[in-house]
Amino acid sequence: MKILVTGAAGMIGRKLVERLSRDGTLGGKPIESMTLVDVVDSPVPEGAPPSRPIVCDFADKGVAETLIAERPDVIFHLAAIVSGDAEANFEKGYRVNFNGSWSLLEAVRLEGQKEPYKPRFVFASTLAVFGPPFPESIPDDFAPTPSTSYGTQKAMIELMLADYSRKGFVDGVGVRLPTICIRPGKPNKAASSFFSGILREPLNGMEANLPVGDDVRHWFASPRAAVGFFITAATIDTAPLGVRRSMTMPGVSATVGEEIEALRKAAGDAAVARIKRVDDPFVAQIVKGWAGRYDAKAARDLGFTAERNFGEIIKVYQEDEMA
Amino acid sequence: MKILVTGAAGMIGRKLVERLSRDGTLGGKPIESMTLVDVVDSPVPEGAPPSRPIVCDFADKGVAETLIAERPDVIFHLAAIVSGDAEANFEKGYRVNFNGSWSLLEAVRLEGQKEPYKPRFVFASTLAVFGPPFPESIPDDFAPTPSTSYGTQKAMIELMLADYSRKGFVDGVGVRLPTICIRPGKPNKAASSFFSGILREPLNGMEANLPVGDDVRHWFASPRAAVGFFITAATIDTAPLGVRRSMTMPGVSATVGEEIEALRKAAGDAAVARIKRVDDPFVAQIVKGWAGRYDAKAARDLGFTAERNFGEIIKVYQEDEMA
Repeated sequence: MKILVTGAAGMIGRKLVERLSRDGTLGGKPIESMTLVDVVDSPVPEGAPPSRPIVCDFADKGVAETLIAERPDVIFHLAAIVSGDAEANFEKGYRVNFNGSWSLLEAVRLEGQKEPYKPRFVFASTLAVFGPPFPESIPDDFAPTPSTSYGTQKAMIELMLADYSRKGFVDGVGVRLPTICIRPGKPNKAASSFFSGILREPLNGMEANLPVGDDVRHWFASPRAAVGFFITAATIDTAPLGVRRSMTMPGVSATVGEEIEALRKAAGDAAVARIKRVDDPFVAQIVKGWAGRYDAKAARDLGFTAERNFGEIIKVYQEDEMA
Repeated sequence: MKILVTGAAGMIGRKLVERLSRDGTLGGKPIESMTLVDVVDSPVPEGAPPSRPIVCDFADKGVAETLIAERPDVIFHLAAIVSGDAEANFEKGYRVNFNGSWSLLEAVRLEGQKEPYKPRFVFASTLAVFGPPFPESIPDDFAPTPSTSYGTQKAMIELMLADYSRKGFVDGVGVRLPTICIRPGKPNKAASSFFSGILREPLNGMEANLPVGDDVRHWFASPRAAVGFFITAATIDTAPLGVRRSMTMPGVSATVGEEIEALRKAAGDAAVARIKRVDDPFVAQIVKGWAGRYDAKAARDLGFTAERNFGEIIKVYQEDEMA
């Protein structure tokens, strides 16, 4: 089987490609080739199936048609510009996240007019499709009312993915990712960065700032779980989905206080002492607009799985990044 | 104030223009001019403010910019291709209902870059944004999972309308119309045609076919109420809406059996005897995918009003169409 990955050089994209390379198969079928697209060079893991990294913007004119002309059996569409960029650059956000993604769907539809073709199309969506006010736990049928252009663009593609799937042009599955924790690497400018930072830095003997209170609750899964979501999305039977093609992924609902207690259990009081409380009302205000709990029932019923607690999330980091 | 109406020759469009002409004002401000756009000639009612009917496809290249260059204060965007057409002609549906509507929003945004401009943008949406399975009564925060391309295109524009409003480019309100009953005129090929037909034809001494059972429940409002929704949408304070710009309109939840009893009360047994039961499993199957009841709480709280029962809906028809 042939696989196309957009956003293959991103944190999750790289881990997905590593997993595919390690497995050598997807859904029991050998992987024949991988095309890895990103705006920077995508690393090809050792022992990977024949892989071609392509440096290009998937949203540029003609790129989608060229990529789809190879008729990949599975498309992992992870590429996007991030929330802050889409918010600051309105036209760019719609051009890349919306029109770019639509051009991939259109390329698939038009390719199928030449000769029957209906690839699995796995779309990286986001919980930013939702906006406040939130109920205590967000059900699967809660209406997307995004608070950002990024969330809007993802929600629009979710709708198209369902319609193109209903019409039989693609076989789409949308994966709404929880906040990924613990992100490897360095702190970044995302408002969510501290959720990883207050664990990652202390685990590595460094200090980390905590800009919000202990009672802030959020929804998490590890990078390894995220890769698992994409693999599951690529291999499940989609018949039971109907038009409800995009699903909130399972995760761990935890407060910052619970994160800290899991850190204490994993690495002791000394690690916890490396967390410095430095209130940041700006970050606190942004985080207040995020939900803390989702039912994620549809996804769980279909076999999507995440960690059960923060202890497991920390263990994944220790195994995958510190070993 | 200057008003632009797209779809001004349609059944609701004409009634909206008649109402605006009769009122001479909107939200207490005198109407200075009306631009009436449709693919066929839009009638200009007697005594209307200075009005210019334009025969064109609003979705054609350059049309949106030309219409918006006049800087209308209120835009009633009713034009669309209907559900069956959008379903049969996939590309046309997206071109007109989605890209056409987006081009209007974009024209407004770009006009505002020349000189501050933020018109009220009233968008005719649809309950077809929702798809089964349905709860007993559909809450305002129920997720749109459309069963048609038409519903998908409308749901996508709802998302954009919210995002463009959040960014301050337009001041949008989306109006999800109930099934309009009693439609004046002749039966048409819409699957919903019989809901009006079994009242309209008997009231006019003619026979009508009933293709479904008495227990089929649906959500209705009169053409007069629909016009009222658009006027309300053009004049409410939108500050409380936040990003929840599109709302399900209030209506009457009634079964076919209740429709028939209202007809009996209004026009007697002789009228009811003109309804012929001719089962149509094809129509019954389509209608099974429609919901029977909506909370419509947000809209009611903001002052949107519809009829309270089918007796009132019949009375509106008698007053507006038979007098």
